Amino acid sequence: MSLTPDSAVRTYIENHRAAFLDDLAEWLRIPSVSAQPAHADDVRRSADWLAAKLGETGFPVSEVWPTAGAPAVFAEWPSGDPAAPTVLVYGHHDVQPAAREDGWHTDPFDPVVVDGTRMYARGAADDKGQVFFHTLGVRAHLAATGRTAPAVNLKLLIEGEEESGSAHFRELVESRAGRLAADVVIVSDTGMWSETTPTVCTGMRGVADCEIELYGPDQDIHSGSFGGAVPNPATVAARLVAALHDEHERVTIPGFYDGIAELTDTERQLIAELPFDEAQWLRTAKSHGTLGEAGYSTLERVWARPTAELNGIGGGYQGPGGKTIIPKGASLKLSFRLVSGQDPYVVEAAVKDWVAAQIPAGIRHEIVFGAPTRPCLTPLEHPALQSVVRAMGRAFGEKVRYTREGGSGPAADLQDVLGAPVLFLGVSVPSDGWHAPNEKVEIDLLLKGVEATAYLWGDLAENWTGSPA
Amino acid sequence: MSLTPDSAVRTYIENHRAAFLDDLAEWLRIPSVSAQPAHADDVRRSADWLAAKLGETGFPVSEVWPTAGAPAVFAEWPSGDPAAPTVLVYGHHDVQPAAREDGWHTDPFDPVVVDGTRMYARGAADDKGQVFFHTLGVRAHLAATGRTAPAVNLKLLIEGEEESGSAHFRELVESRAGRLAADVVIVSDTGMWSETTPTVCTGMRGVADCEIELYGPDQDIHSGSFGGAVPNPATVAARLVAALHDEHERVTIPGFYDGIAELTDTERQLIAELPFDEAQWLRTAKSHGTLGEAGYSTLERVWARPTAELNGIGGGYQGPGGKTIIPKGASLKLSFRLVSGQDPYVVEAAVKDWVAAQIPAGIRHEIVFGAPTRPCLTPLEHPALQSVVRAMGRAFGEKVRYTREGGSGPAADLQDVLGAPVLFLGVSVPSDGWHAPNEKVEIDLLLKGVEATAYLWGDLAENWTGSPA
Repeated sequence: MSLTPDSAVRTYIENHRAAFLDDLAEWLRIPSVSAQPAHADDVRRSADWLAAKLGETGFPVSEVWPTAGAPAVFAEWPSGDPAAPTVLVYGHHDVQPAAREDGWHTDPFDPVVVDGTRMYARGAADDKGQVFFHTLGVRAHLAATGRTAPAVNLKLLIEGEEESGSAHFRELVESRAGRLAADVVIVSDTGMWSETTPTVCTGMRGVADCEIELYGPDQDIHSGSFGGAVPNPATVAARLVAALHDEHERVTIPGFYDGIAELTDTERQLIAELPFDEAQWLRTAKSHGTLGEAGYSTLERVWARPTAELNGIGGGYQGPGGKTIIPKGASLKLSFRLVSGQDPYVVEAAVKDWVAAQIPAGIRHEIVFGAPTRPCLTPLEHPALQSVVRAMGRAFGEKVRYTREGGSGPAADLQDVLGAPVLFLGVSVPSDGWHAPNEKVEIDLLLKGVEATAYLWGDLAENWTGSPA
Repeated sequence: MSLTPDSAVRTYIENHRAAFLDDLAEWLRIPSVSAQPAHADDVRRSADWLAAKLGETGFPVSEVWPTAGAPAVFAEWPSGDPAAPTVLVYGHHDVQPAAREDGWHTDPFDPVVVDGTRMYARGAADDKGQVFFHTLGVRAHLAATGRTAPAVNLKLLIEGEEESGSAHFRELVESRAGRLAADVVIVSDTGMWSETTPTVCTGMRGVADCEIELYGPDQDIHSGSFGGAVPNPATVAARLVAALHDEHERVTIPGFYDGIAELTDTERQLIAELPFDEAQWLRTAKSHGTLGEAGYSTLERVWARPTAELNGIGGGYQGPGGKTIIPKGASLKLSFRLVSGQDPYVVEAAVKDWVAAQIPAGIRHEIVFGAPTRPCLTPLEHPALQSVVRAMGRAFGEKVRYTREGGSGPAADLQDVLGAPVLFLGVSVPSDGWHAPNEKVEIDLLLKGVEATAYLWGDLAENWTGSPA
């Protein structure tokens, strides 16, 4: 097994670079905005376009899978080798809304290449560009190895609702679990630390969220006539929020941290090795200070520690001026980011018990949880993870470091339903501007992604030892 | 000095009862809703009507005083006795909005007498009825005593904006302070404990209110990418609210309680003697439990103790479903009820200092206070208060008990600007439904109010010993 690049792969990619970019641009011209009903036809057109292109690429199976919402695309290219592992690539073909007047310098759905190095368009990085590199990647893999089918059983599932909440994704995965069965899931919808620091993500936090309604008096009452003698539901809401954390910013809910494996020295070391610049990170966070759980660094806090966050609070009078009332009610929206070892349903039960115990007599409450997303984490020693790291290392010619993702995604549903570990291979960088005006992709990095996948399928097959429990 | 009723007063009132009620009904037909610009002419008409009626009653001076908003009415009837005290009666001639569709059984501006005992109309109790009893009251006083002018120098100031915030009241009082000068202010805009428990109110709480804006990230940010590592302004808002009180529901702001005289044993005893029924009180409060400062009863909490109350809170996402953000900002509206001994401006400074000390790095805040209303409290031993109690006792033939008022009112401006103690004489009862549909006044009680004022002017003049400091 070699960590050096393969000149055949590089040559193949170079020779097909122009056509690859032209094709990608054609796809990017389809405004597949899943959140806007007016673009429903475009989302369908995007799915059809991709399914056809995957067929042209050589995938023997290439289908559009309808859902109750926007369609997904499924493609499959069997290895032919009965011992080969099966890999499922996840991505999405829908995009965030975009309009010229939001601050785009060019039409978001008319891709422009600037300086020969960056392609600007909605979806260029998130996620069409990073889905599309699998077409050229598998062809380069075949060309360089002389194979007629990939070294792994390659499956792609490219959903059409990721930017609008993946409402039907879990249902789709559950109903198609047989055809989606895989040993490893590769998520192709993330990024790297920076242009100069190639990284592989090893996990995402999960999330459980709830809405809490608090009911006090039957109507807003006069704060002069009654103030000081009856419980105020907005105050109770605020006290709930304040009681969520102790003075070390640790979540106080009994049992909340149960089951979490502490970060190992190696994991902490790998995080500490990243070139983290707090001032730069704060600029990205558009924030003006850090605050978090005592004993952990900023990156540890957002990647490896669970949170209790207040997403919204409302109660009483919020218009101009004052109004001397005790409000009749208040509401809270809380979300809990979860890390490996936490079960969302255990957390949900713990939160419900804790909230009930906080509410004083005279206040009634309701608490409703949404569908949770589980956390996922691949152990550093997992052979498939090591294959991804080697493939990235060969493509970039640099030491590959490890990150995690603080957010949560539907990929966790794949892990959950299919029982396969989830890995991440992404080449987008923070400056690409996901969800923002003037989204772009760095073409050189995109082609490194192509190259990494060209190496990955062979490495995975060669080093496959079966899926560890 | 006699505590017995005066048959001449009673006879005079009985003989003029029908005309008094007809006149009141005529006034109530003018929909003087100060909060609704469409009724501006009606408010002016109401002022003109009252000024004319006070002239007919015998007041030598009866004027409409314009303000930048709705007009007030001023009337004056000098005693002629250079040693007589000067009394200023305060009330208002504007009313709350009312519409048949709000649940009125009859037209709110077409008074109806039911069972010969209750007159239903907007303003019947709040406050036209209780202003109007002064017309018959002074005539009964003259008739029974054979005087041609009242025993006190009697002034009336009846404002036209009480139900819409008294925006120009303090300006009016300041600009007319010379003509309004008085030894005692009698507020004729309150009520009694109940039909069977005549009471005199001895003070009102003051109020200081503020809005606090908290600013965190420059925009809403992703709670996955950044959650757990930056301060959340909505959480900071909630923590501020939670920190306002300790576990005994005492306000924690340093200096907040400075200067407050503790309730004396006598004061507590007088409050405890009232026939307080907590279940009934909770129904009035439309609340389902009591909660307040440890060591005080419910009535002590609302009448005699200061509060810090959350009137409104808002931050982050408040729409349907969830949104996993750290919000960019949050806002609070707080009001502080104040009791005798507290200076609103000292409290304002203490709150500002305390809030600033609570805010973590990375969160910016702004705090703005509105114009405060001072508390007012008349000592139980004040001779004018004793005159009011005796007058009420003669009218009702019952022991008169003492209450306070938890709310705050523009009457405190009179105390503040004129330097005169503020007393309260009211005969409305909780079932009268102020601000609610089907407001009414109990005619027998209204005539007891007439009777009480008929006794009061003589008693005040007789027992006047000069205004204690």
